[in-house]
Amino acid sequence: MIIDTLIDKIKQTENPTVVGLDPRLDYIPDFIKQKVYEKFGKTLSGVMEAFWQFNKAIIDATYDLIPAVKPQIAMYEQYGADGIACYIKTIAYAKEMGLIVIGDVKRSDIASTAEAYSNGHIGKVDVEENSFEIYREDFITLNPYLGWDSIEPYIENCKSYEKGIFVLVKTSNPNSGQLQDLNIDGIKLYERVGQLTEEWGTTLRGKYNYSSVGAVVGATHSKQAQDLRKKLPHTFFLVPGYGAQGGTAEDLAVCFDKNGIGAIVNSSRGIIAAYKNKKYAKDFSEQNFAQASRQAVIDMRDDLNRVR
Amino acid sequence: MIIDTLIDKIKQTENPTVVGLDPRLDYIPDFIKQKVYEKFGKTLSGVMEAFWQFNKAIIDATYDLIPAVKPQIAMYEQYGADGIACYIKTIAYAKEMGLIVIGDVKRSDIASTAEAYSNGHIGKVDVEENSFEIYREDFITLNPYLGWDSIEPYIENCKSYEKGIFVLVKTSNPNSGQLQDLNIDGIKLYERVGQLTEEWGTTLRGKYNYSSVGAVVGATHSKQAQDLRKKLPHTFFLVPGYGAQGGTAEDLAVCFDKNGIGAIVNSSRGIIAAYKNKKYAKDFSEQNFAQASRQAVIDMRDDLNRVR
Repeated sequence: MIIDTLIDKIKQTENPTVVGLDPRLDYIPDFIKQKVYEKFGKTLSGVMEAFWQFNKAIIDATYDLIPAVKPQIAMYEQYGADGIACYIKTIAYAKEMGLIVIGDVKRSDIASTAEAYSNGHIGKVDVEENSFEIYREDFITLNPYLGWDSIEPYIENCKSYEKGIFVLVKTSNPNSGQLQDLNIDGIKLYERVGQLTEEWGTTLRGKYNYSSVGAVVGATHSKQAQDLRKKLPHTFFLVPGYGAQGGTAEDLAVCFDKNGIGAIVNSSRGIIAAYKNKKYAKDFSEQNFAQASRQAVIDMRDDLNRVR
Repeated sequence: MIIDTLIDKIKQTENPTVVGLDPRLDYIPDFIKQKVYEKFGKTLSGVMEAFWQFNKAIIDATYDLIPAVKPQIAMYEQYGADGIACYIKTIAYAKEMGLIVIGDVKRSDIASTAEAYSNGHIGKVDVEENSFEIYREDFITLNPYLGWDSIEPYIENCKSYEKGIFVLVKTSNPNSGQLQDLNIDGIKLYERVGQLTEEWGTTLRGKYNYSSVGAVVGATHSKQAQDLRKKLPHTFFLVPGYGAQGGTAEDLAVCFDKNGIGAIVNSSRGIIAAYKNKKYAKDFSEQNFAQASRQAVIDMRDDLNRVR
């Protein structure tokens, strides 16, 4: 059960942090950009080579301290086929280094379309008698607006290939309440989605009593997260919104259960672009950007462990 | 305004049909598969060459009869970078042949992530001083569960580059009501999403008084569609669910306004795999699969025009 593997990795590293591999051109150190531009020109394949070198350096500098990484596919997809190749290469390398990979894809579709996403991302794709694993994420994120029809096609692959999903329940953006906080028969929409997520995960519970069907619950909505933690005892939380988005360790402490498990917290910019933060810039040069990320991981780990 | 161009194309072709380019390996005629397997092997690039030849033949056989095509990205994305390259190549060819392209991507993300999707799909991506158009869809579909934060980053590109979006309001799947039909303060969730979609499109209304911010409304939910048509006078509908999913022309007639505009109806399998349907198999051999698709387009056009 992949949720058990994730929790075991969190215990082993004593670190409930997932590093968001969401590179942007302005996060990439100039010395990397100059080198790839010389070779590839200022092209899509040039940027993707830069992203790859950047991601690899950050994985190499942090893999022993963290349980997981979460690449955000949009940051790669925007560059077309080269981008998708870089996303896939990054996932393969993270797995080679022993990390769990959460693909932040937020897909939402039904029937044969959802099956296509499911097979591509967490299952296998057949070409006649040949079978291919394409993206190889361990978990992916999914949007629930289309209901069970848009979740079910993933459950079978979760069972067959030891994979998991995180359903968007209460997202971290300021405006997430526009739909998610609407009142439906005495509860909020996100609470109903939370209940459904708990139900959808019934058949995928592991040794810690958490399911491989988890929920995305933003650190920026502390009261709601506290309530969800109580009501969804078998649902593991993927928590965005720490750091750059404004969520603090105190805000998200409520996402952990009494044993200090039950959640993994994402930080993207705060870790991968740490060398640009004045807190780290004084000790780490641009050349040592990955070491700045390592220090940011250590600081985040200690910050989270203070409250869980 | 892209919505005007779409409506003009519908008027010119007298056909409110969009052909869903959602190829599957079992739709591809054997003679195409054999040829590509000989050259590329039973590989991902082989399948994508087969998809491309299949799509090109269908576009060539139907482009003069239809206003638009709607490739479903999942069917390509599942094959990785080769798949994305084929999706992009298909879009480029459809546009070269004068068709409007609706990318069925159903993305849902916020802030810089939504910007990345928006720039990649309907805007431009910068690499230093170089600027690239990557996917080049005219419209894309979006999932609203994350609220305005997940829509706003697309509106600017809609204005700058004459693009549009279709927001998922009431989807065609049997189980769409699980969330979409929940009661919120006297109305259903999908009605609220419909109201928001109408508001979000205010600044993008064209000469027909429809907005380039449209809505996805399933043909399989006729009563709801009728009600939405009345309440959302400026919102153009993209209507899935005709044919294979069970929606009839009579069911979806309510999506058109009193002038017979206001909606475009998708058919995927019913058109692109027409040669496999016994209705067409007697007149068209597998070799003539694209001509079967042409006949299916004519039949669908006449069926829709009967009711609008």
